[in-house]
Amino acid sequence: MNPIRLSLAEVHDFCHATLLANGLAELHAAAIARSIARAEADECHSHGLYRLIGYVASTRSGKAEVAALPELKPATPVVMRVDAHRGFAPLSIETGVPALIAAAKTYGIAALAIHDCYHYSALWADIEPATESGLVAFAFTVGQCCVAPAGGTQPLLGTNPFAFGWPGPKGRPFIFDFATSAAARGEIELKRRAGEALPPGWAVGPDGAPTTDPAAALKGALLPFGGHKGSALSIMVELIAGPMIGDLTSRQSLAADNGDGGAPRGGELMLAIDPAVFGRDSVGERLSIADELFALARQQPGVRLPSDRRYAARERTREHGVEIDPALFAELKALMPG
Amino acid sequence: MNPIRLSLAEVHDFCHATLLANGLAELHAAAIARSIARAEADECHSHGLYRLIGYVASTRSGKAEVAALPELKPATPVVMRVDAHRGFAPLSIETGVPALIAAAKTYGIAALAIHDCYHYSALWADIEPATESGLVAFAFTVGQCCVAPAGGTQPLLGTNPFAFGWPGPKGRPFIFDFATSAAARGEIELKRRAGEALPPGWAVGPDGAPTTDPAAALKGALLPFGGHKGSALSIMVELIAGPMIGDLTSRQSLAADNGDGGAPRGGELMLAIDPAVFGRDSVGERLSIADELFALARQQPGVRLPSDRRYAARERTREHGVEIDPALFAELKALMPG
Repeated sequence: MNPIRLSLAEVHDFCHATLLANGLAELHAAAIARSIARAEADECHSHGLYRLIGYVASTRSGKAEVAALPELKPATPVVMRVDAHRGFAPLSIETGVPALIAAAKTYGIAALAIHDCYHYSALWADIEPATESGLVAFAFTVGQCCVAPAGGTQPLLGTNPFAFGWPGPKGRPFIFDFATSAAARGEIELKRRAGEALPPGWAVGPDGAPTTDPAAALKGALLPFGGHKGSALSIMVELIAGPMIGDLTSRQSLAADNGDGGAPRGGELMLAIDPAVFGRDSVGERLSIADELFALARQQPGVRLPSDRRYAARERTREHGVEIDPALFAELKALMPG
Repeated sequence: MNPIRLSLAEVHDFCHATLLANGLAELHAAAIARSIARAEADECHSHGLYRLIGYVASTRSGKAEVAALPELKPATPVVMRVDAHRGFAPLSIETGVPALIAAAKTYGIAALAIHDCYHYSALWADIEPATESGLVAFAFTVGQCCVAPAGGTQPLLGTNPFAFGWPGPKGRPFIFDFATSAAARGEIELKRRAGEALPPGWAVGPDGAPTTDPAAALKGALLPFGGHKGSALSIMVELIAGPMIGDLTSRQSLAADNGDGGAPRGGELMLAIDPAVFGRDSVGERLSIADELFALARQQPGVRLPSDRRYAARERTREHGVEIDPALFAELKALMPG
């Protein structure tokens, strides 16, 4: 079968209509539709249309509060908190990020904690507005509990993504966003759906032995990237997006889950820093130095910077839309109540 | 030859006397002696007595300002800056850290930039006082320019260490501190001195081909840990400890260096966050949740947490002192002017 081609507006409207028809409140449906359309625009399929299945599952199961209104509660002038009241994350992030940006612009550094949400979107999208405002930004969230610490074989940690953004080059900010596991759980699930084997080193099976079978990996444990260093970073994310902000660890989140296959419950931490408060020279001068660093990296054959692939996709999809696997699209259309 | 055994007080006094005799101002000599003794206490030899050679070289060569007085200049209530005026870092860190801790305790989050220093010590020691004050802390500095981005073969990045600390378990905080290169330059230099080969994957030679020869690695390029993810983290550290705070990139630092073999010039960024401003429950409750996470990690055979080795060493050396290689000790004694 040929792939289905949808414009980004069609992706957005399809998600919006499907979520509304399943009983999700308008504000949430709109925020999630924007989030999914942004992921598809960058061909970040693991956080794109595929995620609609989980959003609908958690709407129908009653796990997520369908009409929760996020509540912004600043703790100090530089620590913003948003209580998501167990709603999906995108609306809470849209609620908190402007306050984070304003505080960082005024004081030089600020933090935003999103509490008690269901997070299912890509972190790079959460920090892009801050980088567009000239800020350096970080985001962390505790993913699903399926990762063993380095040297171990039992799930203890989440996939625990780490995202960082720099406010340049202009219009195409340097942003990375990666799971601290060897791969994101979404990637494993896409491989399982596609019937593909995993590269060696990504996972162990339920018996603790290395495996390349995605189904065995999902029953066993994923491994951190980069050995003990990646494992240390995963523990860091677990701590700062969990107990530091008073939210769930990935184990606690798993224990609280109803098994509907949707997003895990937990928190998210974002930090923003304004380069303008540091240094003796102008920010423009320093952004140029960073631009030169990026250019020198790209000059080396074989080097690709983390956001390059996404921005190339963004150029393409703006004009040509996105391709959707027909089997997936059929599954998504079936989410519309009869 | 049998190793030389020194008490930690002897390590401190030896460093202090050697630095003073070479013309370093008393305040700097004392801060560096404390820094080296702390590294040796934790058997962190790559940042211990061995570093005295470089400190003396940069004192004698005039690269470091021997009597620079660090100047604390808060930029906002939560952004502290210390101008090191081209002195060694330890005195500037001791000057800035109390202000960082106070700001984080008052506002929940704060940053400290050390500007224009010669940094040659271990980052875990820089953040330990913050963790002892109940804070979460981070530290970043741009190391010597000798690391190629993932996929490349030419040095562009520093070894760019990343340190993180959590305020528990009590008395033995979870702290990691690692180079974002596969190994720290100090480790490569110790292997060269010991005539040992490098593990595969650490470096390429000047021809761009993989090498296990430490001397070839020092002439070629080290590689990041963990492939493109470690490479992205290395770029992040380069950006936030360099241009973000208005300080040198590792390339700029290399270009400014006089080749005396001592510390590179540059900046350091520290962040501190007070968990007490987040969350609805008590901090004590949340530290217990983290303690349980650490305990569960240790229960898995094969898992070791990053600070365990250092704290075990600290117990040992408090009573028994440290062992020094006789050849290194002879070299160190020869640093005392005749």
